[in-house]
Amino acid sequence: MESTHQATAVFNKMYSKDGFSEWLGIKSIKTELGHTILEMEVRAEMLNGFGVAHGGIVYSLCDSAFAFCCNSYNQISVSIQTSISHTMPIREADIITAEAKLIHQSNRVGNYEVIAKNQKGDVVACFHGVCYKKEQTHF
Amino acid sequence: MESTHQATAVFNKMYSKDGFSEWLGIKSIKTELGHTILEMEVRAEMLNGFGVAHGGIVYSLCDSAFAFCCNSYNQISVSIQTSISHTMPIREADIITAEAKLIHQSNRVGNYEVIAKNQKGDVVACFHGVCYKKEQTHF
Amino acid sequence: MESTHQATAVFNKMYSKDGFSEWLGIKSIKTELGHTILEMEVRAEMLNGFGVAHGGIVYSLCDSAFAFCCNSYNQISVSIQTSISHTMPIREADIITAEAKLIHQSNRVGNYEVIAKNQKGDVVACFHGVCYKKEQTHF
Amino acid sequence: MESTHQATAVFNKMYSKDGFSEWLGIKSIKTELGHTILEMEVRAEMLNGFGVAHGGIVYSLCDSAFAFCCNSYNQISVSIQTSISHTMPIREADIITAEAKLIHQSNRVGNYEVIAKNQKGDVVACFHGVCYKKEQTHF
Repeated sequence: MESTHQATAVFNKMYSKDGFSEWLGIKSIKTELGHTILEMEVRAEMLNGFGVAHGGIVYSLCDSAFAFCCNSYNQISVSIQTSISHTMPIREADIITAEAKLIHQSNRVGNYEVIAKNQKGDVVACFHGVCYKKEQTHF
Repeated sequence: MESTHQATAVFNKMYSKDGFSEWLGIKSIKTELGHTILEMEVRAEMLNGFGVAHGGIVYSLCDSAFAFCCNSYNQISVSIQTSISHTMPIREADIITAEAKLIHQSNRVGNYEVIAKNQKGDVVACFHGVCYKKEQTHF
Repeated sequence: MESTHQATAVFNKMYSKDGFSEWLGIKSIKTELGHTILEMEVRAEMLNGFGVAHGGIVYSLCDSAFAFCCNSYNQISVSIQTSISHTMPIREADIITAEAKLIHQSNRVGNYEVIAKNQKGDVVACFHGVCYKKEQTHF
Repeated sequence: MESTHQATAVFNKMYSKDGFSEWLGIKSIKTELGHTILEMEVRAEMLNGFGVAHGGIVYSLCDSAFAFCCNSYNQISVSIQTSISHTMPIREADIITAEAKLIHQSNRVGNYEVIAKNQKGDVVACFHGVCYKKEQTHF
């Protein structure tokens, strides 16, 4: 399978069953091998007690971008460890974009960076993910 | 204000406006100074493309436990950096408990550990949070 | 092999070849299954441009404690991801103790916490380590 | 002060007193605002019990790159939280380069990425650092 087609096929297979990404309203902007861009809009029910988006919202967006990105190579990959820095408050109605990129992978372990920005281009979160690559493939 | 009452007062103030924690169905099991236990049940809409809970779900539970815990001292505290290891898959209808504890705090920075377990007592996630303590207080 | 003996045997095998732990002056205080305590003294050549211990010094102590701890089960284990928060400055002649404990392990992945303290009992660093457990054993 | 001159002046001030960076044999390859490249050679005394460089060695190199980079803006900056993934073994006599770059900074907090490579260009470690920016300046 050609590589961008493969990444798209994996994305469609994973996304079609992903109820939580759907609840978040996540849309794919770009799906390539080792490069994924997702977008979502922040709704009132996603806010926390400070009136800004709960930290779990942008984490979830970044984690989805990481998951789609590390699975784009067709090898089933699961998250081992992720970290996130929340760099700016996110408000209701903000449009958040998360761009995931491969940093490095070996046979078994992959490292990915995800940067999330709001509609003004401000960085709202920096995410780092480490995945474990299983032997099974998606297709 | 007596310390447990203060922790409870901060929790109530923060939780009453926290739409996302409410969506998650988070309940408080324990609210003390530097010690918070929360619980939630995993619903179908929280699953991802692998049929297990999206990584953002247990992250969000842990992040809420961390937020309530680091704010329990009445000083407004915001997350700087958090990390999480997903140690076991979480299934629909699992009851997840997250226990947050202070590890160490200085004037400006606090370190917290959160351990999440399922109803069998299996550890499903290990979370570490670093917060920045502002000068303002909740009360 | 009895479990504490096994942990000690692995420690001795690993430590005897560990030139950098030797340079650091690391001593073992406790070596058990999933529980390791190490100690070292900070020397002038370990300081950075701020006149306090370079961040790499306490990281190295914690990383050694983590390595000895996760290998104590006799399965060869390598670090995948580690994180550290430096919570207080460390001075020349401080005696630093690092205590590593297993948080959770599955067949392939282990999570460990390491807390480093100075001679007054102040927490100077919080470390979290994730290891990958190979199939090979030490003995 | 012109910006690259300022970054160099801060580097020289910090490095001249940094005994541990000197022990490591760290050399500056590039010193700009928010962009630092350091290099070092791995010596026998830096190896661990597996015969490869102790995790603390490449951590220390990355942490130095991070420290010089986040202080390059002349505002005194201290590490709050750092994480590192060791992606490949490092051998004796390897020449390791660490390149630190600003990802994002606000008034008080900065996020930096550091990538370490060996002489063949293989990524050997991915490092992420979060610093707290004090009000004091170096000059």
